[in-house]
Amino acid sequence: MGVVVQKYGGSSVADAEGIKRVARRVVETKKAGNQVVVVVSAMGDTTDELIDLANEVSPLPPARELDMLLTAGERISMAVLAMAIQNLGHEARSFTGSQAGVITDAEHGRAKIIDVTPGRIQAAIDEGAIAIVAGFQGVSQTTKDITTLGRGGSDTTAVALAVALEADVCEIYSDVDGIFTADPRIEPRARKVPRISYEETLEMAAQGAKILHLRCVEYARRYDMPIHVRSSFSEKEGTWVVKADDVSQESTMEAAIITGVAHDRSQAKITVVGVPDKPGEAAAIFRAVADAQINIDMIVQNVSAAATSLTDISFTLPRGEGQTAMTALSKLKDAVGFDSLQYDDSVGKVSIVGAGMSSAPGISARFFEALSEAGVNIEMISTSEIRVSVVVAETQVQDAVNAAHAAFDLGSDEIEAVVYGGTGR
Amino acid sequence: MGVVVQKYGGSSVADAEGIKRVARRVVETKKAGNQVVVVVSAMGDTTDELIDLANEVSPLPPARELDMLLTAGERISMAVLAMAIQNLGHEARSFTGSQAGVITDAEHGRAKIIDVTPGRIQAAIDEGAIAIVAGFQGVSQTTKDITTLGRGGSDTTAVALAVALEADVCEIYSDVDGIFTADPRIEPRARKVPRISYEETLEMAAQGAKILHLRCVEYARRYDMPIHVRSSFSEKEGTWVVKADDVSQESTMEAAIITGVAHDRSQAKITVVGVPDKPGEAAAIFRAVADAQINIDMIVQNVSAAATSLTDISFTLPRGEGQTAMTALSKLKDAVGFDSLQYDDSVGKVSIVGAGMSSAPGISARFFEALSEAGVNIEMISTSEIRVSVVVAETQVQDAVNAAHAAFDLGSDEIEAVVYGGTGR
Repeated sequence: MGVVVQKYGGSSVADAEGIKRVARRVVETKKAGNQVVVVVSAMGDTTDELIDLANEVSPLPPARELDMLLTAGERISMAVLAMAIQNLGHEARSFTGSQAGVITDAEHGRAKIIDVTPGRIQAAIDEGAIAIVAGFQGVSQTTKDITTLGRGGSDTTAVALAVALEADVCEIYSDVDGIFTADPRIEPRARKVPRISYEETLEMAAQGAKILHLRCVEYARRYDMPIHVRSSFSEKEGTWVVKADDVSQESTMEAAIITGVAHDRSQAKITVVGVPDKPGEAAAIFRAVADAQINIDMIVQNVSAAATSLTDISFTLPRGEGQTAMTALSKLKDAVGFDSLQYDDSVGKVSIVGAGMSSAPGISARFFEALSEAGVNIEMISTSEIRVSVVVAETQVQDAVNAAHAAFDLGSDEIEAVVYGGTGR
Repeated sequence: MGVVVQKYGGSSVADAEGIKRVARRVVETKKAGNQVVVVVSAMGDTTDELIDLANEVSPLPPARELDMLLTAGERISMAVLAMAIQNLGHEARSFTGSQAGVITDAEHGRAKIIDVTPGRIQAAIDEGAIAIVAGFQGVSQTTKDITTLGRGGSDTTAVALAVALEADVCEIYSDVDGIFTADPRIEPRARKVPRISYEETLEMAAQGAKILHLRCVEYARRYDMPIHVRSSFSEKEGTWVVKADDVSQESTMEAAIITGVAHDRSQAKITVVGVPDKPGEAAAIFRAVADAQINIDMIVQNVSAAATSLTDISFTLPRGEGQTAMTALSKLKDAVGFDSLQYDDSVGKVSIVGAGMSSAPGISARFFEALSEAGVNIEMISTSEIRVSVVVAETQVQDAVNAAHAAFDLGSDEIEAVVYGGTGR
């Protein structure tokens, strides 16, 4: 008998009907001969409603109390799911993060898991019960206060419990059938990927594909825990996220060089125009940005014009942080001596990701040619071992995705009808 | 510096405005030089909404999971109250029942407090913080599962914490100014009682006055913890519930024999007509009622008519249990040999309560004369050391309360405008 850990996001348990559907699915997994542990997020919009309530009494709610408040959300969904399962005639017991042994540091709102001691969960499933665990939450090792793990926390809870319980698989359920070669909303020929490596999943997620949260995939990679990404609305096999060796064994027949195309419309570009091309100027600029707590992504510095010894430095950052960054940089104008700042939030990033890329020459060339043929102008480029990203005008993101998808033969012949969305928290 | 424990019911923390008002009140108590511990109920209708949600997935939700679900209610209110207090510039920390050391037995839904180990609360107030504690909940000593204390649980939490922390007083806040000589909605001359003994409070509560819950008062009496019942909507002094000696010391000037008049419209009366007057018949009847889990209150057996040796037995019980009791008794008709059953749910109970009663002769006579003069017919009578209760027609409850109130000079000259309601859970 194997242990299966299943995680259901907020959209899967949005209301009583959703909870009953999840309950039936959990019971089926149990009846198939598994020991089952279920991790749940808060129902639908509960978390947002609780945050609204907090803001009604405090403009900046203290982090300890915000964690105490938000953890009420999973408490509700897990208890109701346990009731729904018991109503189907199967023993089910709900456990808070603390009761499940999810031990974290004391960083409220973004706590890291230090240890998992799932003694009560193991005892429950050994007694034949289904264990329901609140996602996204834990208890601080030092202060004994309740903590939350931050965005993607429930996925991480599920993987961490799966590792601690030596589960066969961690199944992450959402309203999407799996991981696709591109976002099906803008690439109708997008195909579900049957298997993908942890590394490729990380690159896809980092480049804007709303699949799994980085922390959860990093945790799974570290302990080699297979993740099965699938939909709670269908019985279809989803996408298996596994180690690279296990992917390539499967796909010797048709070695796909590129696994998928990711895109990201959430970024903006800042260009610092006319920077004196001498040592220390770039450092001063990026120190100012870092001091303003801005997360920058791509950086490009032009070769300086020989006549002027002036260069332009461009970088991308989340749009929400654009104003802060512009303010911080403006203050440097005289000290650094640049000419002007340009801000552009009509940009998008398109990336091709694939583990086969590193051993296959000419990938970048084929990508850029495809973009060129589609009339897409490239503004910035950045690469990693298994990824090539370009920044383009936001209006050309869809054309760029379609062109890349076609250039690497990623499409299926049929158009799969799917809903594509996030996985909750 | 003294320790003050304050309890705020659901109506006091019904919304963000209510929570902010409570926060200001708590801060005032702190600024007056006290160490403050606050016990809160769930906001407004939260508990009912959670029960509705449970019923959507399960006709009979398992008790362990229902406790897990309902405790989310206080978790929300306590965290939001802590935020509101911090927003006023004072340190506040919220604690679950488990974190506050409220140890109970494992009877989900009606757990009893076994022990209180408030180490974290003591540490918090010793560090100058205000401690906010979830009412109504605890943790089972044996199973480590989350439990709830049942109705009136938050009041009991407050008194139990006050005892464990050796507080000076336990203040119970609601939307009522204190304990009154009668329900002001039906007796406009009702007067707030400045002091009342635990025993009188217990009798008033048991006889239908919606003041404090029995368990909380019993707990306070056992450990001699003064309770101050007051309104969160006004600054007025409320009613002190203290031991009998402390009441009489205060009131030597005007020794009130009767403290108040309670009434209860929630009961029904069943009469078993024509019961053979021989040993064992009454026992058979009340065994059947007990086996059906019916809580009976008053019992009256008439003297049997000499000619027939038949008697009538009447008893009162909660209206909601009337149908069950009638069904259980019907099955006994042939075995016991009674003539018929009569069910009357148009009755009410009116009680006079006063510790001075036991040493003052003629109290019952004065009560019955007053009822007679008001044209009120007495259907049943029962008495205790400090109480006389009568059952009358429901339509005559108000007349009976007014008559008793006047007969014992309980009224004030002015009419105090108050709202009279429950104290939440």
